[in-house]
Amino acid sequence: MTAPAELSPTLQLACDLIRRPSVTPLDADCQTQMMNRLSAIGFQLEPMRIEDVDNFWATHGNQEGPVLCFAGHTDVVPTGPVQQWQHEPFEALIDADGMLCGRGAADMKGSLASMVVASERFVQDYPNHRGKIAFLITSDEEGPAHHGTKAVVERLKARNERLDWCIVGEPSSTTLLGDVVKNGRRGSLGATLTVRGKQGHVAYPHLARNPIHLAAPALAELAAEHWDEGNAFFPPTSFQISNLNSGTGATNVVPGELTALFNFRFSTESTVEGLQQRVAAILDKHQLEWSIDWALSGLPFLTEPGELLDAVSSSIKAVTGRETRPSTSGGTSDGRFIATMGTQVVELGPVNATIHQVDERILASDLDLLTEIYYQTLVRLLA
Amino acid sequence: MTAPAELSPTLQLACDLIRRPSVTPLDADCQTQMMNRLSAIGFQLEPMRIEDVDNFWATHGNQEGPVLCFAGHTDVVPTGPVQQWQHEPFEALIDADGMLCGRGAADMKGSLASMVVASERFVQDYPNHRGKIAFLITSDEEGPAHHGTKAVVERLKARNERLDWCIVGEPSSTTLLGDVVKNGRRGSLGATLTVRGKQGHVAYPHLARNPIHLAAPALAELAAEHWDEGNAFFPPTSFQISNLNSGTGATNVVPGELTALFNFRFSTESTVEGLQQRVAAILDKHQLEWSIDWALSGLPFLTEPGELLDAVSSSIKAVTGRETRPSTSGGTSDGRFIATMGTQVVELGPVNATIHQVDERILASDLDLLTEIYYQTLVRLLA
Repeated sequence: MTAPAELSPTLQLACDLIRRPSVTPLDADCQTQMMNRLSAIGFQLEPMRIEDVDNFWATHGNQEGPVLCFAGHTDVVPTGPVQQWQHEPFEALIDADGMLCGRGAADMKGSLASMVVASERFVQDYPNHRGKIAFLITSDEEGPAHHGTKAVVERLKARNERLDWCIVGEPSSTTLLGDVVKNGRRGSLGATLTVRGKQGHVAYPHLARNPIHLAAPALAELAAEHWDEGNAFFPPTSFQISNLNSGTGATNVVPGELTALFNFRFSTESTVEGLQQRVAAILDKHQLEWSIDWALSGLPFLTEPGELLDAVSSSIKAVTGRETRPSTSGGTSDGRFIATMGTQVVELGPVNATIHQVDERILASDLDLLTEIYYQTLVRLLA
Repeated sequence: MTAPAELSPTLQLACDLIRRPSVTPLDADCQTQMMNRLSAIGFQLEPMRIEDVDNFWATHGNQEGPVLCFAGHTDVVPTGPVQQWQHEPFEALIDADGMLCGRGAADMKGSLASMVVASERFVQDYPNHRGKIAFLITSDEEGPAHHGTKAVVERLKARNERLDWCIVGEPSSTTLLGDVVKNGRRGSLGATLTVRGKQGHVAYPHLARNPIHLAAPALAELAAEHWDEGNAFFPPTSFQISNLNSGTGATNVVPGELTALFNFRFSTESTVEGLQQRVAAILDKHQLEWSIDWALSGLPFLTEPGELLDAVSSSIKAVTGRETRPSTSGGTSDGRFIATMGTQVVELGPVNATIHQVDERILASDLDLLTEIYYQTLVRLLA
């Protein structure tokens, strides 16, 4: 273990944040700590508690010029069984291997600390920087996320705030810090499909219509369909049935109904309406009696190569020597809400190998490198 | 309502039996009543309690000559919600429309009463009849049926009892008494199919193998397969999936496994082994990782036109004026166990429209006609 006095400013702040058990939607005063630090260097603060969710918006700089926003969340997922952790999940210690251990170390209190310290250094070095630095922080990214980033973005839009560039602190790295940044995410479209038949006795199938038999060829066709080829930035759209249920439990009853839950992760080559129409066409082709409840979780977004991606890539290269790889793979993030402002959005954070697991941890020294990457990006864009 | 004194001997006995709440596997002394009546006319009685199930075997006549057996069950299915019945299910009353109402009226205490009264009349009219009249009665036909007719048949086989003809009192009639008799039943073969995949996250389908996607084409092919064409006595073999389940409940998880319960009702054109092999071939063709637990409920049996079917048909015609229709449709019955003795088996009983339902009932006068049909059949075969 390393004594606190020997820790870098970033690691000191990261440990402070980790020690606050801010399980969604709790913030546990993490945002207060961040706002105190930002206020001290001249940020204008705007706390936005919406329903039971703490959020804040903070800016530093001029009305003119571009806006670079750091975005992230102070909430963390639950610890799971504490006895399975090697160290207390909210203790925030650095072990003998130099790993910073604790819930939120990777996702994403480490990034938050790096953002604050990078901003402190940048404002000190460039007190009259051009444009604005902004922070958009929520305490509900891991939960329902209705009153978090999405709601803050709606308020910012309503007053015509402009947001040119955004760095989300999600742990984008896969093996080594900066090896991957996310420059977009696929859309996510869920559905609950109901296929109706007619219940009956298995001994009298001519009096029943078995929805399993009726639906099977359609489900096979949906599973085999190529929805698009993807493009340079996105893999092909994927379709997965996650749940399929039919039957009364009795072995001699033909069920009356079948339910399938499925999900599209879709590229910018497909649209919500297009996917819905193609699903409907396949179901109709098989002459099913069906209904669907659709649930759109997020539209796809993409930040094509440009100022933000260039600045981030150059900073990663300068600090780590690595060529970063932009990727749109993986799940959704709050980046999808911010992208609706016309903002270039890139996700850049620590290695994500242990997120949402017991013994979440990252290499402690990576956080100091991440601070330096964020700092250099600020310099490249706003100096 | 009709006063007991005005009731025919058959209806008096039927009401007595219905008033005994012999829900499976209880007998509630129904068999004692039947045995008392049969003993009074010279039957030799052999009660066979096997485990928790009351059964009895009784015979009247000579060692030489053919044996005609009446078979049936004293147990009834549960009433379901009593408050939904118009009359108490075990009250056994005859309503204003002349319907005998109560649990077991159709299935099959009415038939049991007709069998006893027909035998009483026949023994009185033909005290020196040829061959033997037998009764094979169980109190577990509606339940597991392990210690009922099946077990009695095993004992009879072990001592080389011969059984030429058997009339099972199951309610075979569909609209009018005697319109249909069952001269066989399809076999029933059940199965629990498990298809294994690999669990994963819907956002990373390349790391998972979705058993729903893998199984859907195979299930479609199984549902579309023509297993046989049936024959003069049997409809084609049918295949029905009764239950299909896969999924963790979560919408973002690709499940690891799929389970399907299915059932064959099969004709004498297919064999158990043949059906099992064809299912395996289809699953293998789709390269599934699968396993199946098979459960054979009963082999098919068939009584071709001959002495028994002729006698039964002629008696129905003589009593009701109707041409009866032999059928092998519907579920299984204890006839399948008796048929393994090389016995000609026919099921003949009241109208089955209300069996296993609330307000089970039959036309009371049908039971007197049924007694007469059974009596004439005895005369045709054993006078």
